[in-house]
Amino acid sequence: MDVLDVIQDRRSIRAFKYRTVEEDKIKRVLEAARLSPSAKNLQERFFIVVKDKAKRRALADAAHGQSFVGDAPVVIVACADNTDYTMPCGQLAYPIDTAIAVDHMTLQAVADGLGTCWIGAFSEERVKELLNIPDQIRAVALLPIGYPKDTPTRTPRKELSEITMQDKWVK
Amino acid sequence: MDVLDVIQDRRSIRAFKYRTVEEDKIKRVLEAARLSPSAKNLQERFFIVVKDKAKRRALADAAHGQSFVGDAPVVIVACADNTDYTMPCGQLAYPIDTAIAVDHMTLQAVADGLGTCWIGAFSEERVKELLNIPDQIRAVALLPIGYPKDTPTRTPRKELSEITMQDKWVK
Repeated sequence: MDVLDVIQDRRSIRAFKYRTVEEDKIKRVLEAARLSPSAKNLQERFFIVVKDKAKRRALADAAHGQSFVGDAPVVIVACADNTDYTMPCGQLAYPIDTAIAVDHMTLQAVADGLGTCWIGAFSEERVKELLNIPDQIRAVALLPIGYPKDTPTRTPRKELSEITMQDKWVK
Repeated sequence: MDVLDVIQDRRSIRAFKYRTVEEDKIKRVLEAARLSPSAKNLQERFFIVVKDKAKRRALADAAHGQSFVGDAPVVIVACADNTDYTMPCGQLAYPIDTAIAVDHMTLQAVADGLGTCWIGAFSEERVKELLNIPDQIRAVALLPIGYPKDTPTRTPRKELSEITMQDKWVK
């Protein structure tokens, strides 16, 4: 499957089949994250792979009751250590580096017939408490993974002409 | 090309051939960015496509003199508007949303035989001045794009066992 096809096919999946995800597929998703680039090759992102049912349900509660998070057979909690490096452009590195890794996972998942949903609506404090995550670590995103129950319609996007400019800012 | 192959083949390219990039390839790279998800579908990321030679050279200067930035036939400057939304997990949305879009571009570029290098080492102030970017907009990343001059060796990564944990934080 071509990259652009995968990008086009990716949806936020909020309903999962009652079906286990094969171990080798999870491994490829994590491998996609492992290979992701990071500022100064810091590789400050970590992944807690949550399969335990009670923990998944508790994560769903911590995600403001989004119950489909707990329905997914696997929830990956993307964390970051070493969170104080700011790039010369003024951006903190860790949210960007973690986002690259999570984005890789969302695309590799689609390539293997899986669905994901990037979750930013959760209580970091509750997630950290639940998974014994130390104080200095940030929990950046939750990523439930499973077989999609259906194919949601595509979320509309702005036209290319609305988000691109030539050679300078024009609006 | 499979997604995982593309992810494996991606390198930070710091030397480009003296060769124009076809317009349809640039369009596909931007299309990959356009389709990227964002928090609440804000789509707050914008892309300035810089082809003008003098401007590319000036961008290279603003990128602490990394001259290969100016050698690339195209430099995409990824910007963000609407930069004040913080997700419930405590993360600002715009750096993450912009990172997802830029990551999509880096992968689509590889699928079309192109190379990129994510640049975070630049003076945001100088880049904004150079491209007439308004005060409230953030310039998040520079992405030179072109045909790679060679295939650099892969940057080493931590093993999967070093960056993954099961069901809770263990280190």
